[in-house]
Amino acid sequence: MTTKTHTSLPRGSVIGIVGGGQLGQMLAVAATRLGYKTHVYATCDDSPARQAASYGTVGSYEDIKTVSEFGRACDVVTYEFENIPVDTVSAIESSCPVRPGINPLSIIQDRLTEKSFIRDAGVSVTPFVNVMNETDLSHAIDTLGLPLVLKTRRFGYDGKGQVIIKDVSEASNALEKLGPVPLIAEKFIQFTREISVVAARGLTGEMKAYPPGENLHEHHILSRTIAPAENTDLQASDIAFKLLKSLDYVGVMGVEFFELEDGTLIVNEIAPRVHNSGHWTQNAGCIDQFELHIRAITGLTLGDLIPKHSVEMINLIGNDVSDLSGYTDQSGTFIHLYGKSEVRPGRKMGHINRIISDA
Amino acid sequence: MTTKTHTSLPRGSVIGIVGGGQLGQMLAVAATRLGYKTHVYATCDDSPARQAASYGTVGSYEDIKTVSEFGRACDVVTYEFENIPVDTVSAIESSCPVRPGINPLSIIQDRLTEKSFIRDAGVSVTPFVNVMNETDLSHAIDTLGLPLVLKTRRFGYDGKGQVIIKDVSEASNALEKLGPVPLIAEKFIQFTREISVVAARGLTGEMKAYPPGENLHEHHILSRTIAPAENTDLQASDIAFKLLKSLDYVGVMGVEFFELEDGTLIVNEIAPRVHNSGHWTQNAGCIDQFELHIRAITGLTLGDLIPKHSVEMINLIGNDVSDLSGYTDQSGTFIHLYGKSEVRPGRKMGHINRIISDA
Repeated sequence: MTTKTHTSLPRGSVIGIVGGGQLGQMLAVAATRLGYKTHVYATCDDSPARQAASYGTVGSYEDIKTVSEFGRACDVVTYEFENIPVDTVSAIESSCPVRPGINPLSIIQDRLTEKSFIRDAGVSVTPFVNVMNETDLSHAIDTLGLPLVLKTRRFGYDGKGQVIIKDVSEASNALEKLGPVPLIAEKFIQFTREISVVAARGLTGEMKAYPPGENLHEHHILSRTIAPAENTDLQASDIAFKLLKSLDYVGVMGVEFFELEDGTLIVNEIAPRVHNSGHWTQNAGCIDQFELHIRAITGLTLGDLIPKHSVEMINLIGNDVSDLSGYTDQSGTFIHLYGKSEVRPGRKMGHINRIISDA
Repeated sequence: MTTKTHTSLPRGSVIGIVGGGQLGQMLAVAATRLGYKTHVYATCDDSPARQAASYGTVGSYEDIKTVSEFGRACDVVTYEFENIPVDTVSAIESSCPVRPGINPLSIIQDRLTEKSFIRDAGVSVTPFVNVMNETDLSHAIDTLGLPLVLKTRRFGYDGKGQVIIKDVSEASNALEKLGPVPLIAEKFIQFTREISVVAARGLTGEMKAYPPGENLHEHHILSRTIAPAENTDLQASDIAFKLLKSLDYVGVMGVEFFELEDGTLIVNEIAPRVHNSGHWTQNAGCIDQFELHIRAITGLTLGDLIPKHSVEMINLIGNDVSDLSGYTDQSGTFIHLYGKSEVRPGRKMGHINRIISDA
């Protein structure tokens, strides 16, 4: 940890948020609560984040001119999703700090560089092989065994852009389905559970993490997180701290792990942002992950991350949002909706946090 | 309670908020969290409420044309302060429901009609006398005794517009100081403590209240609330429910009481809105007063108001906001700032909620 003194961003400063989704919305609310103004850059004027922000700019993420103007109007900029062009972040950085910056973004945008980075940081990661063609895929099957998971290296989320190959005969179909783009083959891990940790590093190098949560998925989309997960130790946060430090990272990071039968944790993926599996922190009686991120990027101390309660977070996917009557009157149950006008299958419309017990 | 069925306002509807202060800001955040859009009507474009709202209209509160346009753009309208002209609310009501409506507003705007209403509802209220001139004031001194508190009937807050008269010789000076406006003389109550209750009534007639908080003032401005207050019974909420019902009220109301040595509660004043003494609910592990108000005015069920913790709320007045280092890293301590650019003595800049213990 560095010992140099620093000052935090003054109240009234403008925090820019690239991206208009629910993560941006909840970041904007946290920033407002800390006395900051917010400026959302999104592709439409009616985005969830813009609905709760002080200012908005509408533009494409490739529109360097508009993005640069946005950067000049902000005092610090962050992003709420990882598929922003690096050139865009670079354009903003010419007039305003971006936290976390280009480095973590460019590494994490590509599953190959992400996994190479994790391995090189001395952390266990799902074994992987770069796949550009059929020869590479044969080699991957030989090296990793079957089944394996073939994924696009870029732009995948919520199970999109991935196929499981169980038999050699499925290989060329899988290649064709994912298309002529760079791919990565990953070993299919037999895990006992999936856990994740949300951790942060501040401007001074201070690092903190929440206790890990246990995640349950349905159709490749996070369905529930129960946190703190039972029977975990400091392994997850130690790994997160190692990754944060290696990246000279400032802000919140989510790290997903597969836990093996013997308790070993293998990193599945990293998100350079607040994370769906950290939404439980909003009703846990401690600083939530959105405020944690704002504190980190504005140079404030990170604060109290010790939950006072165990919380179950339930994602509201698609039509789940159409009837909330089972939640509105329940003790210790909190509704969080995102203001998305159109309900679509698989679309994250909101979440519920339910206090289970004292932590 | 009526049994007629009703539907709550659909997600994506626009909630109008008249007033740009911190109460409007925190209402906007709660509305966003429930999936609503927000539209703030305020006298400037940079108000605390506008900073967290989806849409904004700038205009004076007397500008009936602009206010009417605002009303047509909203699905339901509420207000965050009580000194809005009744004609303004009336103009909005011609196109959009206002909750709570004109009736509570017009009664509470004038201390004379407010106190008469409370008395007529069968509730103990500070004894009072209408004062238009010196003769009335002499009569008030005879009736109420000395000391007494002379107040303007309208537009008073945080101790503004009031004078304590301890001796008959101070009477004409006090009259002169408060100016040629309608006044009210109130008996000076020797109370053991001040408590307040925040209660709500929903569209179906459902009523709920938080446990009362104990309030401490400095220089006539609320300094701290500790909630739940020790040794209280259901007297305060029963009184609040009586007042809510008498007004056919929809939304959150704050009721301030003087508690006498024998435990009797006397109503000091009513606020037809969310209340500073209810800010502790934001970190108490239950639905907070802002969401409670949004639930009430949108026709949702009121939800769980049972706190999981005792909380101390500390107002940040004027320069209190300039050094928060004593709060940023403390366990169970939450900072809430309002985004006001200019620090002024006596100005409410934010508040701290500190979890004291399990409730």
